[in-house]
Amino acid sequence: MKLIGNGIVAQSGGPTPVINNSVYGVIRQWLRLKGTGTLYGAFYGIKGVLQENFIDLSSQPGDIIEKLRYTPGAALGSCRYKLKEEDYFELLQVFKKLNIRYFFYIGGNDSMDTADRVNKLAVREGYPLNVIGIPKTIDNDLPFTDHCPGYGSAARYLATTVLETGIDLKMLINNTRVAILEVMGRNAGWLTAAAALARREDGDVPHLLCLPEVPFNEDKFAAEVERIYRERGCVYIAASEGLVDEEGNYLTATNSKDSFGHVQLGGLAGTLKTLVEKKTGLKARCNVPGTTQRSAMHLAARTDAEEACMVGEEAVKLASAGKSGLMVTLVRDDNEEYRCLTGCIELDKVANREKKLPVEWITASGFDVTDEFIEYLRPLINGEIEIPTKNGLPDYVDLQPERDPIPEKLPVV
Amino acid sequence: MKLIGNGIVAQSGGPTPVINNSVYGVIRQWLRLKGTGTLYGAFYGIKGVLQENFIDLSSQPGDIIEKLRYTPGAALGSCRYKLKEEDYFELLQVFKKLNIRYFFYIGGNDSMDTADRVNKLAVREGYPLNVIGIPKTIDNDLPFTDHCPGYGSAARYLATTVLETGIDLKMLINNTRVAILEVMGRNAGWLTAAAALARREDGDVPHLLCLPEVPFNEDKFAAEVERIYRERGCVYIAASEGLVDEEGNYLTATNSKDSFGHVQLGGLAGTLKTLVEKKTGLKARCNVPGTTQRSAMHLAARTDAEEACMVGEEAVKLASAGKSGLMVTLVRDDNEEYRCLTGCIELDKVANREKKLPVEWITASGFDVTDEFIEYLRPLINGEIEIPTKNGLPDYVDLQPERDPIPEKLPVV
Repeated sequence: MKLIGNGIVAQSGGPTPVINNSVYGVIRQWLRLKGTGTLYGAFYGIKGVLQENFIDLSSQPGDIIEKLRYTPGAALGSCRYKLKEEDYFELLQVFKKLNIRYFFYIGGNDSMDTADRVNKLAVREGYPLNVIGIPKTIDNDLPFTDHCPGYGSAARYLATTVLETGIDLKMLINNTRVAILEVMGRNAGWLTAAAALARREDGDVPHLLCLPEVPFNEDKFAAEVERIYRERGCVYIAASEGLVDEEGNYLTATNSKDSFGHVQLGGLAGTLKTLVEKKTGLKARCNVPGTTQRSAMHLAARTDAEEACMVGEEAVKLASAGKSGLMVTLVRDDNEEYRCLTGCIELDKVANREKKLPVEWITASGFDVTDEFIEYLRPLINGEIEIPTKNGLPDYVDLQPERDPIPEKLPVV
Repeated sequence: MKLIGNGIVAQSGGPTPVINNSVYGVIRQWLRLKGTGTLYGAFYGIKGVLQENFIDLSSQPGDIIEKLRYTPGAALGSCRYKLKEEDYFELLQVFKKLNIRYFFYIGGNDSMDTADRVNKLAVREGYPLNVIGIPKTIDNDLPFTDHCPGYGSAARYLATTVLETGIDLKMLINNTRVAILEVMGRNAGWLTAAAALARREDGDVPHLLCLPEVPFNEDKFAAEVERIYRERGCVYIAASEGLVDEEGNYLTATNSKDSFGHVQLGGLAGTLKTLVEKKTGLKARCNVPGTTQRSAMHLAARTDAEEACMVGEEAVKLASAGKSGLMVTLVRDDNEEYRCLTGCIELDKVANREKKLPVEWITASGFDVTDEFIEYLRPLINGEIEIPTKNGLPDYVDLQPERDPIPEKLPVV
């Protein structure tokens, strides 16, 4: 296994707390294989490739590279951009100009579509390029992998938040007896379901999970809220931002769409609060952690960070062995003790596909998850990451791009 | 200094991550003074006294008591309840029946009003009772104390969140270029101002602070958002939930009031989002951490926890010295190295009063704070607390009340 020529690594889509661990894994394996070439980091995903906005990662000082292991967000910057036909020529020009033979793209479903397009472009044009996708998403909705790097950390953040704010709800007796936590995850309830980890005993928070896999029925929901309130004196609800009604429409669709044509959502918690107050007379309060869910490195899971690094390393191994058009996967080892190995799957099988929470892991009521799900999730949140601090705050690294990104739309005047 | 008879400690108002450290301080000092009496914990604040809902804290196992040092929320439960004339007789009956000679009440402005009323009741009725108030509030709005236990931890949580979600905003180039963080603090901007700690260099997040001390002007705000967007390519706003317009009305008042007659607020972030999108054409996203701000023990500051314990201990010292009608304060020592000592102030000087962020710590634009404020705040967030975990999540203690609280209103049918 040898590296010939140069490589590019880039990040795409919403970040995770551990997405930079995958960049770290790519760099580490690149340096191990002692390729003579340069490993470029492209700033702001595929856009950075098109704009030739690069950083030479293979010659960064070791202390900067080490900091990637505990810095959240996309250190290389990220984008949501669907490749257009007219980009292909330009892309190929950049690859040729810089003698790029390896392309590593870290992202979710949409980003694997981009990686797949780049791979097919190279094949079609007869350009020798090894394209490997590296999975990441707090949504955990990529198929063919046991789970996605990023999910364990977001799950740990979410469960801790539910545990802490659950004590707040239970112990402060005022007129607000219902708490609503709005959770990320457009169409898949994996992260919402992770709230269940906070429970130790029957009756603990969260009392009610609203999953996007289960069509939302207002009356059933209100009846559950009332029942729980009578039993427990308070109701803690974790609800996915992407809830759909029985016709399959988002409860909170807006008029905006992103670059991939996905409808943008907003205000689920507020919608449920209004519903609770109208239908039950109980007063509700919303917590909307928003982007904290994909940024909270201070609660990241060590297991997750290590796996994020491992899939990065594996991508370089596959590429250096001449493979292309694949995404690295995590394969759970069938032993007593939790362990994951790596595998791989064709990019075009993953591109644009979503893996939802399996029906058999949702309880009959539709408002909870089974013990099997908890068993699946529990090991993924293990371990802590020690983060050096400076003035009482985490000391994160900032890889300064030489140029600002070219903005998607012009500044307002 | 000796303890004669029994004592009660109770918690009131919104909790803080370190409020249980004050209970811990009271217990520790009580045991040190080797009083023969019992230290009762009243569940759910003054209501627990009226309902005789007690736990014997002086005979709890040591490991349970130790866990109070890292358990967030009010372990004894809390309430928002304004004492009524008709409660006074009942209260005195309970004190007499249980031979209560010491009453420690942990809370904010409203709770100091309750403590003051209890003290004046005892004086009026000639009942020998030592009443000491113990300050806590993430809002940091109690007068006569350098700062309030709870504030440092909430500030550390908030600054960390701004740092982490700021990387998310800056590095993910999509069509959402404005982030709005809604911060607790009804009328005082102390916590919103703490977001500024996240900055290391000029131009870092947060770019704009909206403080309740500064009347909100839509046009000035929109102009600032546009200016920052042109300069930085993104805009991070930290805004207090209690913003008022130029007539002094809350931007987001609802029709509800709490037990103390305070108007309840809702939806500030959503209001600003609509405003930004309408006035500038930029797309905004809201993060509303809500009760996480007063619950996030996992980011609590050790300095804060130690001070919370210290004010609890000092309360017992004052009471055992025969003092009453006082609240413990924190007094900053005028040395190079940060250190706080304790002092005290009459309860009726603190009751229902609010200390706002001083005008001289707000910059001329009204949208930022000065370096003097940062100097004041910086030492308060120092140090971490090690929290034992169980299954990857914090192992918090749950002091089980024997009885559920009597609900404020009857369950819905």
